[in-house]
Amino acid sequence: MKPTIRSPGIDRRALLSSLALLPALSAPFLPASAPAQTPAPGVLPSWNDGPAKQTILDFVRATVERSSPNYVVPEERIAVFDQDGTLWVEHPMYTQVVYCLERVPAVVAKKPELKNVEPFKTVLSGNREAIARLPLPELEKILVATLTGMTTEEFRAEARAWLDSARHPRWNRPYTELVYQPMLEALQYLRDNTYKTYIVTGGGQDFVRVYAEKVYGIPPEQVVGTAGGTKYGYGKDGKPFLMKEPKLLLNDDKAGKPEGIHLMIGRRPTAAFGNSNGDREMLEWTGAGAGARLKMLVLHDDDKREYAYGPAQGLPDSKVGTFTQALYDEAKQKGWTVISMKNDWKRIFAFDSEARSG
Amino acid sequence: MKPTIRSPGIDRRALLSSLALLPALSAPFLPASAPAQTPAPGVLPSWNDGPAKQTILDFVRATVERSSPNYVVPEERIAVFDQDGTLWVEHPMYTQVVYCLERVPAVVAKKPELKNVEPFKTVLSGNREAIARLPLPELEKILVATLTGMTTEEFRAEARAWLDSARHPRWNRPYTELVYQPMLEALQYLRDNTYKTYIVTGGGQDFVRVYAEKVYGIPPEQVVGTAGGTKYGYGKDGKPFLMKEPKLLLNDDKAGKPEGIHLMIGRRPTAAFGNSNGDREMLEWTGAGAGARLKMLVLHDDDKREYAYGPAQGLPDSKVGTFTQALYDEAKQKGWTVISMKNDWKRIFAFDSEARSG
Repeated sequence: MKPTIRSPGIDRRALLSSLALLPALSAPFLPASAPAQTPAPGVLPSWNDGPAKQTILDFVRATVERSSPNYVVPEERIAVFDQDGTLWVEHPMYTQVVYCLERVPAVVAKKPELKNVEPFKTVLSGNREAIARLPLPELEKILVATLTGMTTEEFRAEARAWLDSARHPRWNRPYTELVYQPMLEALQYLRDNTYKTYIVTGGGQDFVRVYAEKVYGIPPEQVVGTAGGTKYGYGKDGKPFLMKEPKLLLNDDKAGKPEGIHLMIGRRPTAAFGNSNGDREMLEWTGAGAGARLKMLVLHDDDKREYAYGPAQGLPDSKVGTFTQALYDEAKQKGWTVISMKNDWKRIFAFDSEARSG
Repeated sequence: MKPTIRSPGIDRRALLSSLALLPALSAPFLPASAPAQTPAPGVLPSWNDGPAKQTILDFVRATVERSSPNYVVPEERIAVFDQDGTLWVEHPMYTQVVYCLERVPAVVAKKPELKNVEPFKTVLSGNREAIARLPLPELEKILVATLTGMTTEEFRAEARAWLDSARHPRWNRPYTELVYQPMLEALQYLRDNTYKTYIVTGGGQDFVRVYAEKVYGIPPEQVVGTAGGTKYGYGKDGKPFLMKEPKLLLNDDKAGKPEGIHLMIGRRPTAAFGNSNGDREMLEWTGAGAGARLKMLVLHDDDKREYAYGPAQGLPDSKVGTFTQALYDEAKQKGWTVISMKNDWKRIFAFDSEARSG
């Protein structure tokens, strides 16, 4: 075999480019209104009947019924989910980037010498256009300053406190409420059928682990994400700690997703859900296994209830969660299922006041 | 907090130094004799009554009984086990090192230009004393040649075929039969009490994953080990593969064990089992959590039924599985439990013909 190797594409550009969208933070504030309607009975109640819902139902039946030619033994039932844009809202900015920017004042308070040093000075100014223009190496300094240099326990406490108080600018709700109700139901439906559900995210593994169990029912050991090294040491009291180091171990995006899956899970998934070009290799890797495989991509085509971006199918271009026409074409050619948020989902969030039929 | 940082100690010396023991391969061959006796009734039947067995029983009761002040919720019940010397025999050489040496002829058959190149030439010569004298950088070339440069699926097939045919020189049995029966019972007993059992090994993660599910009931996603990077690519047929790269991501030994636990599990374990100085930090990290914690070290003090080495408690020094007197003293000082193979284990292997009382 004379294979061609695709570079793992180590760049954090995708994560950081979302900063260019900072002015969008001034989007209109829509208050939550009436209480949520009772979901329809049956499985996947927030999904409209249609090809996407049917694909999930057919896949589960084909892999769990003992008589099926595509039966999958329970221990091989692995379902992987991208997070940003697949399980929760990723616009106008990846939540973790918001976190890093909003942590800057606390970092400067501890190290006042940074106050007049770039890029901290610009971030503190609150000038969003200037922040959006910061070059990539400067932005990386912000990630390093806010995600490393503390113990794993300190980081957990900082992230937890922020998640409790931060609000999304459009819905004025905690980010952890901006999860897609249909996807929560898909997670639960798969787990009810002995699937082990994993998050496989380009976001920070330590960050997502802070809330994944509570929000998605996914325990820390089933969160695979971009991961840095830690360093074992001892405090003055002799107690050991793990210090978060500015050393990238796994860039869990694009080709890094199947690589991360191999590192952390060691099995090829049977089902994979994504929403962008960052998920392409994960779906290819999942689809290349034998038997029935579920490969799904969420298309953000609902600017009324959420956002519309692509640029697949003529949707507006986006640097956060790019879904190119080429990916759309590969999906069609390989038989992957594209989920239309507009048509396939009755409701987007648990707090949505009304459900909509397809 | 002004902490001292301990270097993660990245060296593969421990793995490789076992080569120095190569002449021991000519140890006497003891045939398997009578069939195994039926185990005693009750839990942990291959453990003699005594402090080690009692410590396990007390710990489980303290953490699973709802009324206990040290009750641990099921999702936090994480038990980690070193492998070499803790779950199976590590003398006279780590099994994976035997694998790497025995793979050399196959590697040379595929690349005949290596035949007269060191260190392959020496390994092919079969001259054990010369092999034992190979310097570390030369030995690393053997690890790289036999553990990387193939796809993850090719590696799995190669390792599986070897494990099926290779025999331990002393017992003339497959390595996978040389697992400690009392530890299999401890694994099962913990799982019966909703503990999730993990292997945390200095050995290669991909290697151990090949057999861990069958041998220990531990699935691939619960094997944490020394891990290298992979690279995603496409074959001529367009099918994706993961190529094993000579790039170290995690050196899962000593301080690398808590670091690996954080990376791969993301929770502090409640129970930890080891047998050597390579497990010290893992036991410290486990023990530093609140509530009841199980910290156990297997002491190889039974040269009749297995091996005796230490050098704790005056046992012969060993480069494979070093258990220093300093570690023994730390164990006593911190209340860790030292398991005496000689006194605490009724039988060592499932195939042992007779059980022995303590």
